[in-house]
Amino acid sequence: MIPRLYIDAGLEPGAAAPLSDAQAHYLKNVLRRAPGDALHLFNGRDGEFAAEIAELKKRGGVAAIGEKTRAQPPEPDLVLYFAPVKRGPLETIIQKATELGVAALRPVITERVVAPKLNLDRLRAIAVEAAEQSGRLSVPSVDEPIKLARLLEGWPAGRRLLFCDEAGDDETLEWGGEEGRAAPLLDGLKSEDSSAHDWAVLTGPEGGFTPAERRLIRAQNFGMAASLGPRILRADTAVIAALALWQAALGDWRRG
Amino acid sequence: MIPRLYIDAGLEPGAAAPLSDAQAHYLKNVLRRAPGDALHLFNGRDGEFAAEIAELKKRGGVAAIGEKTRAQPPEPDLVLYFAPVKRGPLETIIQKATELGVAALRPVITERVVAPKLNLDRLRAIAVEAAEQSGRLSVPSVDEPIKLARLLEGWPAGRRLLFCDEAGDDETLEWGGEEGRAAPLLDGLKSEDSSAHDWAVLTGPEGGFTPAERRLIRAQNFGMAASLGPRILRADTAVIAALALWQAALGDWRRG
Repeated sequence: MIPRLYIDAGLEPGAAAPLSDAQAHYLKNVLRRAPGDALHLFNGRDGEFAAEIAELKKRGGVAAIGEKTRAQPPEPDLVLYFAPVKRGPLETIIQKATELGVAALRPVITERVVAPKLNLDRLRAIAVEAAEQSGRLSVPSVDEPIKLARLLEGWPAGRRLLFCDEAGDDETLEWGGEEGRAAPLLDGLKSEDSSAHDWAVLTGPEGGFTPAERRLIRAQNFGMAASLGPRILRADTAVIAALALWQAALGDWRRG
Repeated sequence: MIPRLYIDAGLEPGAAAPLSDAQAHYLKNVLRRAPGDALHLFNGRDGEFAAEIAELKKRGGVAAIGEKTRAQPPEPDLVLYFAPVKRGPLETIIQKATELGVAALRPVITERVVAPKLNLDRLRAIAVEAAEQSGRLSVPSVDEPIKLARLLEGWPAGRRLLFCDEAGDDETLEWGGEEGRAAPLLDGLKSEDSSAHDWAVLTGPEGGFTPAERRLIRAQNFGMAASLGPRILRADTAVIAALALWQAALGDWRRG
């Protein structure tokens, strides 16, 4: 297994790349690698490069950059807006959403959010590690939390919203067909123009969205509400299911 | 929140249902409930019943069964065959597959399985808890591990297999189109007769299937191989993604 590392620096064959303290520690003490051992490096824009460990010091190190091994592939511009949850499932969301190819992750504060203060640096480190292990050549951004109402007010023109409407509240809403229940997710996605828009997915906290929040989201003209089946999914399960369905219906899982 | 509990006994309005030691402890010490408080009970066959705590003792307790509140719904006969992985992701697989509505879970031993000895009682307890919290009225079975070759030899007539072929090995296989790569999962499922078969999903260990295993699985006439996109998914992520896609394309997520 050749370790893959994300480097926040330019990458060019023949140049040297700095290794961080954490990377040097990981290579030396966790993976037991030494100077001369092989690496793969990527920086999110220049593709993937073969490299070799040149130096491992107590703090940091240096890699010698070799040939480019993969070009930077195009990726879907898919944003995950998610209500933060407690630490275990929160970290699952970051890790799995990165594997599932989102371009950006942003916590959204809703009425029923019960979550600890977010440590964005820790969440970003989880995204980097998940990107390294998933073989992708980019790392999603983990952005500052935003309140639901502000997110909807400032919604970027042209981006479509897949709203995972886990309902629960027994209330008739106008949008989404029979008795206000959302349409099955795949039916909704199949009827979308597959190449016309950038997309976002919005998922709720463990307690779901309030009826007022659901009404507000459904009142927007950039969204589609979708159901994730008859059982109640945990917040992290809903994220993974929705992202997998989006990738399969409209994203890069359509290539073989 | 009214607690939902799975009871392995007959349920009939007016009768009494025994609560286990663990259930009594959970109600009394975790949820702080007392006699007179409301419950929902289900047993996997008779539907869901309103109930009331009648007695909470040091060990065990009794519930008084009231009216039936939901009929037992029909459920897809979907089996998950999964290569066991280390404890954290293994428990995620059991929990999430239960939320996603599988009827049975069975560990499959493949060449690259690196997993601790399985504690099936613990895994069954996780399935019960996930069923209680997901609102489903059944608990999937967690069956004894079986070796891959034996599973394929004794394959039940009429059941289709969705093989999550995460490839990785650079080898040309005959089955599945261009250069042996599996087709996108959704394309494969869309071309299936949606009501003709019971189904199973098969997922691999962290290291994937060996080339020989992939050839063996692809040689079976009851299977379809499918790709889960261009990134490498962890074992638990692949399980959740594949089950969500199956439910959306052929299962009970097709109802609104």
